Amino acid sequence: MLFLFTGNGKGKTTSALGQALRVVGQGGKALVIQFIKSKKWPTGEEKALEVFGAKLRLIKGGRGFVGIMGDKLPFLVHKKAAKAALKRAKKEILSKKYNLAVLDEINVALSLKLISLAEVLRIIKSAPKGVDLILTGRGAPKELVKIADIVTHFQEIKHPFKRGIFGKKGVEY
Amino acid sequence: MLFLFTGNGKGKTTSALGQALRVVGQGGKALVIQFIKSKKWPTGEEKALEVFGAKLRLIKGGRGFVGIMGDKLPFLVHKKAAKAALKRAKKEILSKKYNLAVLDEINVALSLKLISLAEVLRIIKSAPKGVDLILTGRGAPKELVKIADIVTHFQEIKHPFKRGIFGKKGVEY
Repeated sequence: MLFLFTGNGKGKTTSALGQALRVVGQGGKALVIQFIKSKKWPTGEEKALEVFGAKLRLIKGGRGFVGIMGDKLPFLVHKKAAKAALKRAKKEILSKKYNLAVLDEINVALSLKLISLAEVLRIIKSAPKGVDLILTGRGAPKELVKIADIVTHFQEIKHPFKRGIFGKKGVEY
Repeated sequence: MLFLFTGNGKGKTTSALGQALRVVGQGGKALVIQFIKSKKWPTGEEKALEVFGAKLRLIKGGRGFVGIMGDKLPFLVHKKAAKAALKRAKKEILSKKYNLAVLDEINVALSLKLISLAEVLRIIKSAPKGVDLILTGRGAPKELVKIADIVTHFQEIKHPFKRGIFGKKGVEY
């Protein structure tokens, strides 16, 4: 099954993490690959998930915000990281080791043209039966909405943090 | 801070669980009190969260679906359970033991008139500083939208499970 969590509202990544928890609780294995978040920025989920070991792996494959929030990395560095994350995602999905693979913020990586939609569609099509996928991030392309089984649009009604201001520890990361 | 996760789309409870994970990962404590889910129905999240012990407690205070899905319990039994869950929530919130308290599906309990909005508003107002609250469930009353700091409306765009059909293990529970 293919899940798509999109929209500008808060809760997409945390929802995918909660879904991963469910899978682990039911005896399965889950993998979360993050396409924007980088290793440099420690997150609450990262520390909390360590207790699950190989049952729930989190890989931060991004290099942080792209072109905003003081980002000074060349675009090609972001592109290389996202492409490597996608390659890793493909490998892990095909390995059938996981019941669920979360491709976190992949929609953002697509919007920014860090990776190609054609390649993402190929990976989705090649996913073995029994491997569920969750794709998160605002601005999901319509091609993904079309093929997804479950789509939730997270609509922001209220949010105190404006763009360009870091969020609260334990809330936003 | 008061978070409100409402709407008919998938991901509200899992998002709250992911938020609880963040809090624990940042060294805090979180509590999840469920107003509809009952002890009889084992869930993935319940089993997975056991590893966190007192750092992340999940209490299933409900008695299951109300008036649907073959529910045969008298309405008063549901009402008593929801009122007890709310009393417990109040006690735990006031104790300041937790940095985050999730009142899961409380909007549904409100819609069904299992508990009163006035009492929920009182509890929100009495919450000590430093105790964040997440209220989930479709059909949030406008009074809660008004006072919440962060509101996400989870809009269902696509969902394969129709009302009255149980979901998939590891996905819906």
